[in-house]
Amino acid sequence: MNTFAPALLTDQYELTMVSAALKDGTADRQCVFEVFARRLPGGRRYGVVAGPGRLMELIRDFRFSEAEVAFLREAGIVDEATAAWLASYRFHGDIDGYAEGELFFPGSPIMTVSGSFAECVVLETLILSVLNHDSAVASAAARMVTAARGRPIIEMGSRRTHEDSAVAAARAAYLAGFASTSNLAAGARYGIPTTGTSAHAFTLLHDDEPAAFASQVAALGKNTTLLVDTYDIAQGIRNAIAVAGPDLRAVRIDSGDLSVLAQHSRELLDSLGATETKIVVSGDMDEYAIAALAAEPVDMYGAGTAVVTGSGAPTAGLVYKLVEVEGRPVVKRSENKATVGGRKTAVRRHKPTGTATDEIIVSQGVPDHAPNDRLLQRSFVVAGEIAEIPPLRESREHLRQCLISIPWEGLKLSAGDPAVPVTIVGVP
Amino acid sequence: MNTFAPALLTDQYELTMVSAALKDGTADRQCVFEVFARRLPGGRRYGVVAGPGRLMELIRDFRFSEAEVAFLREAGIVDEATAAWLASYRFHGDIDGYAEGELFFPGSPIMTVSGSFAECVVLETLILSVLNHDSAVASAAARMVTAARGRPIIEMGSRRTHEDSAVAAARAAYLAGFASTSNLAAGARYGIPTTGTSAHAFTLLHDDEPAAFASQVAALGKNTTLLVDTYDIAQGIRNAIAVAGPDLRAVRIDSGDLSVLAQHSRELLDSLGATETKIVVSGDMDEYAIAALAAEPVDMYGAGTAVVTGSGAPTAGLVYKLVEVEGRPVVKRSENKATVGGRKTAVRRHKPTGTATDEIIVSQGVPDHAPNDRLLQRSFVVAGEIAEIPPLRESREHLRQCLISIPWEGLKLSAGDPAVPVTIVGVP
Repeated sequence: MNTFAPALLTDQYELTMVSAALKDGTADRQCVFEVFARRLPGGRRYGVVAGPGRLMELIRDFRFSEAEVAFLREAGIVDEATAAWLASYRFHGDIDGYAEGELFFPGSPIMTVSGSFAECVVLETLILSVLNHDSAVASAAARMVTAARGRPIIEMGSRRTHEDSAVAAARAAYLAGFASTSNLAAGARYGIPTTGTSAHAFTLLHDDEPAAFASQVAALGKNTTLLVDTYDIAQGIRNAIAVAGPDLRAVRIDSGDLSVLAQHSRELLDSLGATETKIVVSGDMDEYAIAALAAEPVDMYGAGTAVVTGSGAPTAGLVYKLVEVEGRPVVKRSENKATVGGRKTAVRRHKPTGTATDEIIVSQGVPDHAPNDRLLQRSFVVAGEIAEIPPLRESREHLRQCLISIPWEGLKLSAGDPAVPVTIVGVP
Repeated sequence: MNTFAPALLTDQYELTMVSAALKDGTADRQCVFEVFARRLPGGRRYGVVAGPGRLMELIRDFRFSEAEVAFLREAGIVDEATAAWLASYRFHGDIDGYAEGELFFPGSPIMTVSGSFAECVVLETLILSVLNHDSAVASAAARMVTAARGRPIIEMGSRRTHEDSAVAAARAAYLAGFASTSNLAAGARYGIPTTGTSAHAFTLLHDDEPAAFASQVAALGKNTTLLVDTYDIAQGIRNAIAVAGPDLRAVRIDSGDLSVLAQHSRELLDSLGATETKIVVSGDMDEYAIAALAAEPVDMYGAGTAVVTGSGAPTAGLVYKLVEVEGRPVVKRSENKATVGGRKTAVRRHKPTGTATDEIIVSQGVPDHAPNDRLLQRSFVVAGEIAEIPPLRESREHLRQCLISIPWEGLKLSAGDPAVPVTIVGVP
């Protein structure tokens, strides 16, 4: 069992800062921290917010146990006063942010954390870990879902990422519109539909392929997927239909030139009378490979490595920056990283048809907005009390609606500008 | 608290295969599964085995609880017989493999799992998750350590990856030769030295930079690192030395053209009499950025995103393949994925000087080997009993020795062939 309580999933400097701030009296200054991305990776046109639901559970449990405080004290990381403060730590501030499943763009204030400096700063590492990971996966997954044009995608990447990341990745992929996951913990914990039938090992275990197929059909019924590429794919399909009959639910192909193989497999299945048998393809599927198969007779995709590793962008590039101290906007003034200080409010504006036109973000104020427009921030935590988080299915539907709302070019896989332009209006 | 027991960190198809194999009587066939990489990512010249130590703890705890079995049964994932089998599951087989910290190349049999089909197949997902993640991080980290030429590197990437991955990543980076980590859980759990002082937020919190520096020095002493790039770096350095005096341990620069800045900072520090004050640089550090600073007066690096995400290769590409059934070698015969069946034994051969010349892998036999050569596999589990795993520091030293043993070209960062050629000798 993995037994990391969330409080130690933290960078040491968060606590040394608390230590110094407790000593000099600045620990209680009222602060606002903001989570945002400076840019989207690789010319992506949108990012997907994922993780708030998971994060709020971790913040609820964010306490320093006696053993943890003792470790910090004994390792010389914190002094007595800080140790005492940590022992009674509980977040009493506010957290607002973009809903899970919302789109974001460079500069979107996707989460705003306010409270005393000390209580907010200790949450930095955990907040960024959760949002950077989950949003990276969801952002990649959403592009795959678009590329799949309505065909279901199964998430099957658990083995390619850390064992606990795998569960969060399955959740983020489902949020983004994947149909199901191979990960059992994600099924148990989040109620995500799980799927899986057999691997090449199962075929190799048996004396021959027909024996393996017969065993699988005997155990799982005809409503299963037979993996047909262990030896020869055409023969595999013949064996599958010979064993299961033309009512077999699906065959899976996991290697080779999937375009050609899908066509040949469809023709062969049809010639065998298995006109309703589906074709599932897997193996190095990313958004581009999925798009390239759009015209082929493929019924379902399995995606692994690319989705769980963010398809080239394994982290979402989100940062957690102090933007306000005691009501005064603050900003770091170093080259190429200029940001606008102050607590932000964000509105996405839409045409009467519902198409998003731009996102307006105002520091220390509220943007003008018409009835078609949408205030993007919701309340996650009020005075330390965690608000009810929408269920995952609702967030999934929210993202689906958001993707319908962006201009058509925003769904292109090619590199380009953000789908919705963002204007950040600073303090006058 | 994250409470995933390891058993559900598993792909569903592992259990449906068990189900079918129990039904047809093949579940008890004696099998050998092998973990290997078909290739190294991006022309890397070696990979680093990381994860066995962590994995063995998870395998020790790999049991299906009553609640987990009930979930699987109620979700219709397994039948009664399989549920009963899972409820009493315990791995009774053998696991051999390359030591943690060992180098690997395409085809190296880094782990060999033997036992009944059913008991071995259920471990597939967990074994691959752990080894793929940890080895990806260690493989990238080792290149950074080489590029740093003896200068220490701090791992500070927790915020860029899943919160639990962060702990494993800190462990893998330390194994690879990193000096320390920012991650407190990694310190508590694995005894890795932790480090951290302050962020830009701490400076912004205060009325001005000298106030922030004075606070930090008051709390942490002069043996600390002051972050000098919140406003103007030259002024930041002047403020740092004015506050702390020339005995200040270090300054950190986190942005800008680090080559030029390191030089200017060194000159300025020296002119202020702070000739012993170290310069720490961070911000988008990967092996190439580290190498590019080799000639600059940098004393320490901080690496984040690149190390925890495997510097472009976030997964190690390891697969888990059935290679032997009841003593008979088996192999999947599909295009471009031909492998040699059978249980392998691996030897790395060396010149009398200690330089590695090649790796010979023999299926169902033992390669000839001289006194200079090294049998690469050790025993991790014997008949279900987990052997003692060497402590992390020992594995770290093992890797250091391994990297000394490979030909000089093997340490180049550029893309190329594996540092040590591998020959796999199949069954005659």
